[in-house]
This record gives sequence, structure tokens and C-alpha cells, in this order.
Amino acid sequence: MHESHKLTRHPPGTAPGTLVPPENALPTEIQAMAYDGERLIEETVVTPEDARALADHWEHVWINVDGLASKDIIERFGKLFGLHALALEDVLNPYQRPKAEEYDSVSFIVTHMVRIENGRLVIEQLNMFLGRNFILTFQDKPGDCFGPIRDRIRKGAGRLIRTGGADYLAYALLDAVVDSYFPVLEQYGEWIDRLEDEVIGQANRKTIERIHHIRRKLSRMRHAVWPMREAINHFARLPCVTESTRLYVRDCHDHLIQILDLLEADGERASSLVEVYLSSVSNRLNEVMKVLTIITTIFIPLSFIAGIYGMNFDHMPELHWRYGYPAVLALMAAIAIALVIYFHRRGWIEWRK
Amino acid sequence: MHESHKLTRHPPGTAPGTLVPPENALPTEIQAMAYDGERLIEETVVTPEDARALADHWEHVWINVDGLASKDIIERFGKLFGLHALALEDVLNPYQRPKAEEYDSVSFIVTHMVRIENGRLVIEQLNMFLGRNFILTFQDKPGDCFGPIRDRIRKGAGRLIRTGGADYLAYALLDAVVDSYFPVLEQYGEWIDRLEDEVIGQANRKTIERIHHIRRKLSRMRHAVWPMREAINHFARLPCVTESTRLYVRDCHDHLIQILDLLEADGERASSLVEVYLSSVSNRLNEVMKVLTIITTIFIPLSFIAGIYGMNFDHMPELHWRYGYPAVLALMAAIAIALVIYFHRRGWIEWRK
Amino acid sequence: MHESHKLTRHPPGTAPGTLVPPENALPTEIQAMAYDGERLIEETVVTPEDARALADHWEHVWINVDGLASKDIIERFGKLFGLHALALEDVLNPYQRPKAEEYDSVSFIVTHMVRIENGRLVIEQLNMFLGRNFILTFQDKPGDCFGPIRDRIRKGAGRLIRTGGADYLAYALLDAVVDSYFPVLEQYGEWIDRLEDEVIGQANRKTIERIHHIRRKLSRMRHAVWPMREAINHFARLPCVTESTRLYVRDCHDHLIQILDLLEADGERASSLVEVYLSSVSNRLNEVMKVLTIITTIFIPLSFIAGIYGMNFDHMPELHWRYGYPAVLALMAAIAIALVIYFHRRGWIEWRK
Amino acid sequence: MHESHKLTRHPPGTAPGTLVPPENALPTEIQAMAYDGERLIEETVVTPEDARALADHWEHVWINVDGLASKDIIERFGKLFGLHALALEDVLNPYQRPKAEEYDSVSFIVTHMVRIENGRLVIEQLNMFLGRNFILTFQDKPGDCFGPIRDRIRKGAGRLIRTGGADYLAYALLDAVVDSYFPVLEQYGEWIDRLEDEVIGQANRKTIERIHHIRRKLSRMRHAVWPMREAINHFARLPCVTESTRLYVRDCHDHLIQILDLLEADGERASSLVEVYLSSVSNRLNEVMKVLTIITTIFIPLSFIAGIYGMNFDHMPELHWRYGYPAVLALMAAIAIALVIYFHRRGWIEWRK
Amino acid sequence: MHESHKLTRHPPGTAPGTLVPPENALPTEIQAMAYDGERLIEETVVTPEDARALADHWEHVWINVDGLASKDIIERFGKLFGLHALALEDVLNPYQRPKAEEYDSVSFIVTHMVRIENGRLVIEQLNMFLGRNFILTFQDKPGDCFGPIRDRIRKGAGRLIRTGGADYLAYALLDAVVDSYFPVLEQYGEWIDRLEDEVIGQANRKTIERIHHIRRKLSRMRHAVWPMREAINHFARLPCVTESTRLYVRDCHDHLIQILDLLEADGERASSLVEVYLSSVSNRLNEVMKVLTIITTIFIPLSFIAGIYGMNFDHMPELHWRYGYPAVLALMAAIAIALVIYFHRRGWIEWRK
Repeated sequence: MHESHKLTRHPPGTAPGTLVPPENALPTEIQAMAYDGERLIEETVVTPEDARALADHWEHVWINVDGLASKDIIERFGKLFGLHALALEDVLNPYQRPKAEEYDSVSFIVTHMVRIENGRLVIEQLNMFLGRNFILTFQDKPGDCFGPIRDRIRKGAGRLIRTGGADYLAYALLDAVVDSYFPVLEQYGEWIDRLEDEVIGQANRKTIERIHHIRRKLSRMRHAVWPMREAINHFARLPCVTESTRLYVRDCHDHLIQILDLLEADGERASSLVEVYLSSVSNRLNEVMKVLTIITTIFIPLSFIAGIYGMNFDHMPELHWRYGYPAVLALMAAIAIALVIYFHRRGWIEWRK
Repeated sequence: MHESHKLTRHPPGTAPGTLVPPENALPTEIQAMAYDGERLIEETVVTPEDARALADHWEHVWINVDGLASKDIIERFGKLFGLHALALEDVLNPYQRPKAEEYDSVSFIVTHMVRIENGRLVIEQLNMFLGRNFILTFQDKPGDCFGPIRDRIRKGAGRLIRTGGADYLAYALLDAVVDSYFPVLEQYGEWIDRLEDEVIGQANRKTIERIHHIRRKLSRMRHAVWPMREAINHFARLPCVTESTRLYVRDCHDHLIQILDLLEADGERASSLVEVYLSSVSNRLNEVMKVLTIITTIFIPLSFIAGIYGMNFDHMPELHWRYGYPAVLALMAAIAIALVIYFHRRGWIEWRK
Repeated sequence: MHESHKLTRHPPGTAPGTLVPPENALPTEIQAMAYDGERLIEETVVTPEDARALADHWEHVWINVDGLASKDIIERFGKLFGLHALALEDVLNPYQRPKAEEYDSVSFIVTHMVRIENGRLVIEQLNMFLGRNFILTFQDKPGDCFGPIRDRIRKGAGRLIRTGGADYLAYALLDAVVDSYFPVLEQYGEWIDRLEDEVIGQANRKTIERIHHIRRKLSRMRHAVWPMREAINHFARLPCVTESTRLYVRDCHDHLIQILDLLEADGERASSLVEVYLSSVSNRLNEVMKVLTIITTIFIPLSFIAGIYGMNFDHMPELHWRYGYPAVLALMAAIAIALVIYFHRRGWIEWRK
Repeated sequence: MHESHKLTRHPPGTAPGTLVPPENALPTEIQAMAYDGERLIEETVVTPEDARALADHWEHVWINVDGLASKDIIERFGKLFGLHALALEDVLNPYQRPKAEEYDSVSFIVTHMVRIENGRLVIEQLNMFLGRNFILTFQDKPGDCFGPIRDRIRKGAGRLIRTGGADYLAYALLDAVVDSYFPVLEQYGEWIDRLEDEVIGQANRKTIERIHHIRRKLSRMRHAVWPMREAINHFARLPCVTESTRLYVRDCHDHLIQILDLLEADGERASSLVEVYLSSVSNRLNEVMKVLTIITTIFIPLSFIAGIYGMNFDHMPELHWRYGYPAVLALMAAIAIALVIYFHRRGWIEWRK
Repeated sequence: MHESHKLTRHPPGTAPGTLVPPENALPTEIQAMAYDGERLIEETVVTPEDARALADHWEHVWINVDGLASKDIIERFGKLFGLHALALEDVLNPYQRPKAEEYDSVSFIVTHMVRIENGRLVIEQLNMFLGRNFILTFQDKPGDCFGPIRDRIRKGAGRLIRTGGADYLAYALLDAVVDSYFPVLEQYGEWIDRLEDEVIGQANRKTIERIHHIRRKLSRMRHAVWPMREAINHFARLPCVTESTRLYVRDCHDHLIQILDLLEADGERASSLVEVYLSSVSNRLNEVMKVLTIITTIFIPLSFIAGIYGMNFDHMPELHWRYGYPAVLALMAAIAIALVIYFHRRGWIEWRK
């Protein structure tokens, strides 16, 4: 349940560009797709050198690296593809802020993918290097939202995805990353719906924790999405991005804005949940107090009357009257009825159906 | 009552420009108006090809498409009128953010119309394509706020609406969209008035839900209107918009700003309703507690005195006094009166009229 | 008490520039002042044509129109003085946002005057057309803050007000409009002072309504003043405004900023009133609860003791003691005193003076 | 205690530049210092004409005017030193917003000095005119923070303060004004410290008023300091300010930013005081309720048992048992102990040390 | 526990550049490192003149001064290295805002280092002068985060840290300062985790103070980090910073943004803690009230019945019935059970496990 960010960083003062794989990093696996408009090969395991060879001989190459345990392989990638040491350091330090950076020949783009796993939000960093004719993606662990893109490449002979160049593929990946937020937001929308019901019906101390959990997650996504806007804008202005791709990136940017709108709207709804919750708590307190007050207010005067006639004075004429007892009972009943009518008039007692 | 947005989108990674009609889309119907300064024809059902023919032979053409079920018709429109695939995708994805986009020859403008139907706010997306001599509008369902414009076209031989070109018609439609917010806002203003009365008078647990419902709707409208400002500004700067139309667009922009002002003012009023509600809840709690305290505080000492003389000690001289009983009753009355005066002085008891 | 804005607008889709006088519009009355550095005439009733004639023959003319009932007169003004149809529409639609707009030869400035009438805030729209040598002002109803300016014109032969041209007169009117906020704000400051006393002393359920009433009015004035800044800036940049007048407009702008500061400060004070109110309500609840708790806590144990000796057991030796009764009374007194001391120590009982 | 700003302004519509001394203005007194690198004279009382003569014959002159009662003297200063009528009007209207304005030959700078007098915050307006070789300062009343500067001038033969020109002296005065905020802020810091103790210890209804008093004062200082940033920036860009002085002004600007930081930090602390206060009030209410609940919950069942055996039924076998009375007492004790243990377990009773 | 900032400043009006060591300043100690790509000397104690000599003869020199007690030494540094008097004044005035300033030949950079000492946040000012071939750092007290940098210099013959020039060393120091925030933030993250547990479990009046303590510290760090962004940007634009160093500074800037993100996220979490705390307090109050209400509501009617049969009327037939007493006991039991069932149905009684 704790949210605190475990930052496995080097101690302050370490030389920049020092590569240290994160704790619990998964073993490194490499897949490559090399294609042009007509041909396509797909290899599941390659060394960085093999990847380089593909990039030298094919028109377009996409190399995806899952798992960051092997510092050696990542360094060799760095040397073979001309990746800057600072960018490689960012790859190994998770929780980078989304950004797009230009280095000499290769651009570096960091974004965050989201998905729901076992009812929990998972945010995974996607590191992408965009070269003249290659895309290099690094991910913490296997599993991503690029399945449909792989299928489009496989089946897309002659289509834009095969002919559009590295920049178009980069756009397609970014678009998939951005679109991965929509199903997650839909899920959150449903959770908020359910909390809205709960807040009014049977709210308890767990409810407020759940609301704050949702709010924190929405806030985290907002923190992930906000800098992605700038990153996508920056990406669109990279010299290696063609004019026609730029039109698509604008569309992707629109989606991002829409996600921000949805996040904001969900955030507002979650905030108003807190208010509704608090006011429902006060309402219940009010109700409890009313019951207490009604019961007390009705019985205290009656008990007092009973107390009077329980006194042991020698001279209490009422005690010796023939109908003293029923008279007192009648008096009590009258008082009780009068009070009930009074409370009813003030709206404190409502006859529920 | 749930507010969550059902986003019927393609899975992340789908190719951009893929056209999938939204769920429950209504059957597609097409109406066309073709006119110049003097002549006018109006056809209720046409195919996209007929529409194209009209656009080829008439000076100004407005084609309106209601219902988005037929992917085929929409694609044919796309091909015949040169509409960009990304724009067509936006037409089929409801809940687009308002925007104005320039494509090669045709501009694309998305706005949101509002109306109140059966006491509920309905926000409908209006998609408009603005070509050299034609306007193409796409709507989810029949029913819009363009009746008066159609009348002005029909009766307006020689007037600006007939001679002003596609850009002027586009302005007129946008202006109608913007002005559709005014009656809706007036309705919301009345609802807030009524809630103000309710909050003070007989607020209950439904009240706070109603307030939050209003707030959410106002916030949704704000989200719809805010980007419309930019869209309208963008529209005014389109190359196909003439200088004289631009003057009218400025007026339309002013209305938009006024709507934002009204939305903000209504939002503030709704927020202050929450505060008034909460403070009225606390006030009522206070009142309830006062009644409890007054009753308890008056009767507890009296009951205590009665309790004392109910004790069974052998030697309690007061019990045998001739006037012990009336004396105790008098004492009790004195205490009660003293307490009532005390509470009155502290302002806890107010004699209501 | 209701705040909702009655927007008497045309239905959406009506042609722009359609003139419809607002409901309950007052009959139209026209006054004119025509002057140069030396001469001055003042006419109380003129037709638009007379006004035009004055503007043709005098150096400076100020025509003021009160009451907007006559669509005909306003249209004739429009034609004679070259006023744009959109601007005239704005004149007849109250609740325009303050703005300054340039049309071909005549500029159009909308501002809001305020005054307090019978303890209520009245916001009235002032519509001003600024031509080469004339000023045309339109107001909903008679009564404005221009009395001193009329006097200055009458008595000011040779002074700047007579020689300064239409732009200087426009400045003078705007300055009077801006300065009309100061006495109103002073009145609001006094009302807030009074509420501050009330909140601490004898706050009741009316108090919070009054606070929110004040806040709403301050917020409305803020909404009126905020766009006036831009309008005044725009006015200062109009080509017809001379450099020397511009210096005065800067001063007027300063006043506007000061008004915004005052509005903000008053808004903060009003907000803090809510907090003080709420905390004073909780304090009172606390006090009520303390009284209840003290009384209950003292008497419940005493009553319990009395109850014990009211039991009817055959064998209760204390009952037969010679001094049982006084001993029990003494015990009760001791308990009561001990509890009072205890509460005093915990700070729950304070001896008020 | 009231905070409302008494605005002694002319009625709206009065001619700009009309000079009316504020109510209760103090009699006008003039001091002058005239100096160059080597020589210095200091005169306590001079007429405006004398001041002018000094300015004509000395290299640098600083004339300070305390008290604004004499409209005549101020008008003569205006004529002799070429001060703009609008600026003079601002001098006589207290509560001007800090600003720096350029008029033809003389610049006009308004700032606010602060000090604590008898435990109250005093904000005084300093009006400064900066001419080629003279500084004219106008203050509402005697007493300022310029003592050290006067000493530096007196003792500073040959130093920068004597040779640096009017712009350097203006900087020195502004710097003293800015630095006058530091001791005041330190005082406020101490007051907030004290309130932090009070809020936790013995907060009462005065506490919240004190907190809001502090917040209002901090907010007023923020309103005074915020525009001073712009004024100082504007001052630094005046043509009469030399490059070397500009370096010092940058330092002064840094101080201003630091003051804003401190004000913001103090504002946050004061805001969190309100939260702590409110939560300490709720905590105390909770405590009171617990005491009430514990006492009531323990004694009510006991009293009930006593009540049972106080009933007068003919056939109540327990009453005749030999050890009925002690048995009932034991039962009561057992119930009481059980309840105390139960409350202790739930954490409601804590044994304080 | 008090947070107020002790500002040991000169009185307002003191000459700028006046050097006064802060109270309790530690004795001044100087260390120097002089190196080029191959050679390195490190001296622990030097005079300013020795430092100057090193700077004259070595390629790169880093002089670090701990403790600011000796005004004389600092002034001599100022003269020997050409440090501006205003910058030296800032060195001696702690709590400077982070900034980077350009003076003629030497740039001046102020930043704040943080660390946790004995569970308390310590913010220490680092003053850095960056000359052509030297770096001068001034610190209040010994102890910093530069250990790893010193090691890199010592062992780094031939590496960038030895060959990169003064600007690269300045970057390395700034980077270490920025990175010093990460472990501190991780610590705060853990503290907030712990508070989250506490707030739900056993929150007491200390909890809210701890939350506010954390919030204040986070806010102070935010105030320290925010201007560092600008300072780092300014540093990157200094003419003495080479293009290749600039790439590293961009990375450092990224870290700073990430720190701001973390601070903001922690701030939001801390804010939501307050809400959770307050709602858990209300929940507990509700619970207390329920217990009170249940007990009171059950026993008050029972006591009333007992009271009735404790009355001493002569004619109360029930008292003489054979089974009157058990019948009344049964009635009481029935009432009690009915009430328990009723409360259970309303959800007020939950059987805990």
C-alpha cells in the first residue's frame, strides 16, 4: 500500500554516465525486426553485434531489449549504435521523467506506458533511441502494448508502417504508448463510479483510503503524462521527423490532451467524493445524535415524574388518590405523545417506508 | 447517475485512420442544401456521389450527415471530398476535444453542442469540414440547433447568409453552437437558485448529491468550452476565412468568453453551496445538541433530588415534615426556572415566533 | 436573493446584428452637449438626426442615450454615425463583457459602472462609441456617475476637458466609471467589518448567507473589473488616442489595478470569515458539549448513590444508621466538589467575569 | 481590529490631478541635505524655493518632506521641480500601489515602508521623485528607516554614497525600504512560533482571530511587496540609472524575492496553523465526548440495577435474601470494572502521568 | 520545533557590501586541490595568498573554505581573486536564495545542499565562485557531499574530471548538490509511509503535528529547489561553460525537475494525510457517539419502567400480582433485545471478530 518511490541511484557525486543496472533487473533479451517495403525477418535472440549487422544491411530495423540486467550488453549497444552515456544512464535509472532529447545522430525519447495488472496500476518506462534507420527500445521487463504494431509490420507489406521509415515507426510506438492510457482511464472511471455508490451507501473507514489511493494514482499518471506533451512536441520538431509523420504526431498530441482532460475530470470527481464522504459522515453523526436526543428527551421527563412519586414523604396526597396511578400513567403518555408530535413537526422524526 | 466516459476506442497500437463506427451508432441520413444568392434546392436523401455532384455545380453547398453507422458512406465522403483519414477517425470517435485543424484543402473543426433533454444535459459532438465551396457536417444523431440557420438560408435570398460563402456559413454554424450554451446555462442558473433555497430550508442527503451533480456538469461544459476558444481563434486565422467574416468570428469569440465567465460564476456559486450546506449541517447538529443539553441539564438535577427523597433511610427528617413534599416541588420548580433563565441569558433558548 | 442571470438573448442561430430591445427596457431619452474651447450648448431632447447635425457643426459632441426601448432610434443612430451592427447588438444585450473594439472609423467600448442603491449592488453597462469628434454613450436607465464631468464641461471653458478632444472625454468617462468602484468598495469594506464583529459575537444561520452574498458580489465585481483592464489597455492603443491622453489612461489603469487589489483583499477577508465562522460554530458546539458533560458527569454518580439507598432490600444496614442520611449527603457533596475541582483543573470550567 | 481601508478619494468624475490633502494630514516639514564628494550642508527647514535654490547650486540634493497637510507647498514643489500633476495626486492619495513611472525629466517611484509600532504593523507610503541631480521624498509622517543612510552621507566624504549621484541615492533609499521588511518578518516569525505553541497548548477563541490577523497582515505585506518587484525592475531600466548602480539594484531585487519567499513560507505556516487549530478543536471535542460516554456508559446500567431493586413489587425474592444487598453491590462493582477494562482495551482510557 | 528563520542581517540602510560574519560562525579552514591531467597536489591548510599562488601556477585549482568566522580571510580572498563585494556579502548572509550571477571575470553561484542529521533536515548554503581556472567554494561548516568528487579527482588522472576545466568541476559540484536531494527525499518518503500507517491506526494529537512538520520541510526544500532551476539554467548559459559541459548540465537540470516532481508528489501525499486524519477523527467521534447512543437508548426506557414500579401509589395493582416482578423483568429483556435488533439492522452494531 505504500507509495514511496524506491530510488536506486548512485551516491551523489558519482561520475555521470556510470552504468549500474537497477536492483532485481531481469535478464536481458533481445528481439529484432528488420524489414523494408517487401521483405521482413524477425529474430528472437541476437547479440548487439548481430543487431548492428542488421541495421547495416536492412532499410528499417527495430530492436527491442527487455530486461536491463546485463550492463555489458547495454554498453556494447551504446558503442555500436552511438548512444550517449548520459542517455544509457537514464535507461538504467527507472522513474525518469518523460522527455525527448537530441544527441548527435541518435535521438532519445523516454515515455511511460501504463497497464492494470491484477487490479494494480503498473507504470513502465519505455526508452527509445531513434537513429537514421533504426529504432532501439529498452524496457524493464517483457510485456508491452506493441503487439498490434508487430502484427501491422508483419502483415503490412507495402503499407505505411513498412515504408514510413524509423520516424514513422517511432510515432507508431509513441501512439501505442499514449493510447495505452485510455483503457486504464476507463478502468479508473469505473472504480470511481463504484466508489460513488459506496460513499452514499455503506461508506466506512476503508472508503476514504480507497478514494485517496485513486487520487494518488491519478496524480501519478498526471505526472507521467504532463511531460509527455512536451516530449511529443519535441519529437515532432526533431530534424529526422518528416512532414507527413508530423501530421500524425499532431493527432497523437491531441490524444494526450484528451487524456489530460480525462485525468483532470477524474481528479475532480475523486475530490468531490471526499466532500460527499465527509458530508455523509456528518449526516450520520447528525442522525445518531437525533436518535439519542429524541430518546433522552422523551424519557428523561417521564423518569423524573416516576422519581417524584417514588419519594417517601409522609404527606403526598396524590399517592393515596384512588386513580392516582392511572392518572400519572396518562400524564406520562400525554407528555410522550406531545414530544413526539413536537419532534415530528421540527422534522426530526421521519416515518421511513 | 454514473458519469464515467465510455471510450469505445480501438485497442492501442491500431493503425491511425482506422474507421470503426461507435457502438449503437444510428443509421446514416444525409440532407443537402445547395444555393447561391438567388436559387436554392434542398434534398433530403442523397448519396455521397450526389452530394459531390451538387458541390461541383452549385456555388455553395451544405451537406449534413446524421448518424454514423455506415462506415462505407463516410469513407466515400472522405474520398470524394478529400477528407483526411485522421479527421474521419475523429468523426467516428466521439468525445473529441474541440479543435480546428488545417489539412491540405479542407479544414476540420470539432465543437460540442449542448442542450437539455428531459432535464438532463446532452453534449453532442459537431464535426464540420470546411472546403472551398462546401460545408460538410457530421452529427451522432438527428436534432441540432441549426433550425433558424436553415430558415435564414431558405428565406435569405440576396442576404449575407446566401452570398457570404462557405466560411460565413461555417461561422453561422459555430455561432449557433456557441449560442446553444446560453439557454442551457440559464437552466443551470435556475437549478442553482432552487438548490440555494433547498440548502437553507430542508437540505437532506440528496441535496449534496445534486450539488455535486451540477458541479460535474458545469465542469464538463467548461472542458468543452475551454478548447473551443482556441478552435475558434484557429478558425478565424484559416486562410479561407475572409476579413469581413473574421469580424463576426470575433463577436462569436466574445460570446464564448462570456459563457466561460458564466460557467465560472456558476461554478463559484455551486462551490459556495457546499459550504453553506456543510455549515447548515453543523448548525443543525448544534441545535440538536442544544435541545439535548437543555433537557438533560434541567431534568438531571431534578431527578437527583427526587432520587434523594426516594432513599429508604430510617432517619430522614424532611420526609416527615408537614410541607416537605410541596417544599421539594417548589425547590424543583425554582431550579428549573433558574436554569431556563440561565440558558436564555446565554442565548441558547430563543423564543421562536 | 437569487443571483441567476436572466439572459434575454435571441434563440441560437439568429442572424448576427439582429436588434431586439431587452425586456422591460425604459423609453429612450437623448441628451447632447456640443462644445469647443469657448462655446457650449446643451440640449435635453434631440432626434438622432439632430445629434448628427450637432456632430457636423461643432468641434466636440457628447450624446448620451438613456433607455433602450426604441429599436428604431438606435438603428437610426447606427446609420447616421456609422456604428457597426454587431456593436449595436451588444448595446441591446446587457451583461456584455467589458471590451474595447475597433471598427472602421468608430471605436466601441463597453464597461460596467457600479453603485449601491438601497443597500444593493447595481451593475450597469455603459456602452460608448468614440468617433473622430463625438462620443455616443448608451445606458440602460437614467442615473450615472458623470455628474461631475458634466459640471466640468459646463464650467471648464478653456480647460483640457473642453479642448482635449473626444479621446480625452472618453478617458474622463472611463475614469469616472473606474472611480465609481471606490465608494462601493468602501461600503463593502464596512459590511465586512460588521460581519467580522457578528461572526465572533452572535453568529447565526443568517451570517453565513450574508458572507456568501458578499463573496458573490465581490466575485461579480472582479468579473466586471478584470476584462476592463484589457479594455482600457486596448483603448490606450487606439489610433485616435493622443499621446498626452495616454498618460492619463495609464493613471486610470493604475486605479483599476488598485481596485483589483482591494477586491482581492476583500475576497480574502471574506474567505477567512467563513473559516472564523466555522471555527466559532465548532467552538460553540464544544462549549455546549462541555456543559452537558459536566452536568451529566456530576449528577449521574450522585443519582446512582441515591438509587442504591432507594433499593428495598430487607438487609441494608446503612439505612438504619443514625447518621446514614447526612453521611450519604456529605459523600455526595464530596464527590460533586471533587469532580468540579477535576474539571476546573482540566480547564473545562472557567469562572467568567 | 477592523481592517477596512479608508479611501479618502475625490468623488468619481473629479478632474485628474486635483490635489486634496488626506484627512488628518500632519503639518508639512522639509529637511534638505546638499552635498558633493567633499562638502555637505544639512538644513532642517526650507521653503520649496530654498530647496530649488539648493538643487541649482549643489551637485546632489536630497529633500525630504514629512506631512502632507500643506497643499500649497506641495503644489509649489510641483512647479519648481517639474513634477507631474498626476504624480502629485498620487502623493496625496495614500494606499497607492508601488510603482515606478517615467515622466519627462523626473521619475516617480512609490514604495511602502513597514515597521512595527507598539506591536502593530504600520505600512507607510514613500513617494520618491528622482531628478537629474535631486531626490525628493514625500512621507505621510515623520519617522522612517533612513537614519543609517543619513549617517552614511554625513560621514561618507569621498565614498560612493557621496559621489554616486541621484540614482545611487535612490537605490540606497529603495534598499533601505526593502530591508525594512526583514526585521518585521522576523517579528512575525516569532509571533507565529508563539501561536504554534498556543494552538497546541491552550487554544481558545482568541487564537483563531490572532491567526487570521497575522494572515491578513502577511497578505497585506505581500500585496505591498509584489508590485515593488516590478517597480524596482522598472527603476533599474530608467535611463538615468547608471550601469554600476544597476548591479546594486539587482542585489536589492534579490532581497525582494527573498522577502516574497519568506512571506510565502510564513503564509503557509499560518495556514497550517488553522488546520492544526481545527484538528485540536475536534480532538478536544472527541475527548469531552469520551469522558461523557465513559461516565454515562458505566453508571447508566448501575443505576438501572438500583432502579430494579427500588421497585415495590410484593414478590421480589431477592429483596429478602440475607446477602441480597452485598450481592447486588458486588454485581455493580463487577460491571463497572468490566466496562473500565473494556474501555481501556479500546484505547479510550489512557492513564496519564 | 520552531521554524522561524533567524535573519542576522545588518540594520536596513547599511552600506551594501558590508561584511559581517554570521553569529556562531565556525573558524575558517581552507583546503586546496591543484591538478592538471597528470599531476595533483592537495594541501590542507593554506592562506588566501597561497591559494592565489596555486591558481597562478596550476592548470586547475579548487579551493574550499569551511567556516566563515574570519572576515579578514574572506576579504583577502575577495581582493586576490577579484570577487565582488555584493557576492561576498551574500556568502556571509546565510539563507540566500539559490542563484547564478555573472560578475566581470568571476561568476557566483549559490545553491543549497541538504542532508539528514540525527533525523533532522539540515539545509546548508554552498557558495561557489567560478573563475577562469579556479573554483572557490565557501561553506558554513565542514561536512559536505563532495567526498566522491574528491576521490574522482584523486584517482582520475587523464579522465574528464581532471581535464575538463573549471566549468566541468563546477558542474560536478552542482550535480552532487542536486543529487544530495535524492536520499533525503527517499527518507521523507519513508516517513510519510510510516505516517500513513499511523494515521489510520493510532493517530493522536502528535500525528497532525508530525504531518505539518513534514509538510513544512517539504515546502522549504521546494523553496530551495525552485530557484535552483533558474540558477542551473543561468549557469549553463555562462560564457565560460563549454558546449560539452552544457550537455551534462542539461542532465543535471533533468534531475532537478525530477526532484521537483517528487517534492510535489510527496506534498500531495502529505496533504491527503491531513484529510485522512481528519476523517479518521470524525469516524472515531461517530463511533464514540454510537456507543453512547446505544447504551443510553437501551437503558433509559428500562430505567423508566423500573422507576414506574418504584412509585409509592397506594393503588398499583401490578405490584400485588403474583408474577408481576418476573413479568416486568421479561418486558425489560424484550425491550432491550428489540432495541439491539433494531440497532443491528440500522448497521450501528457490528459484531467484530
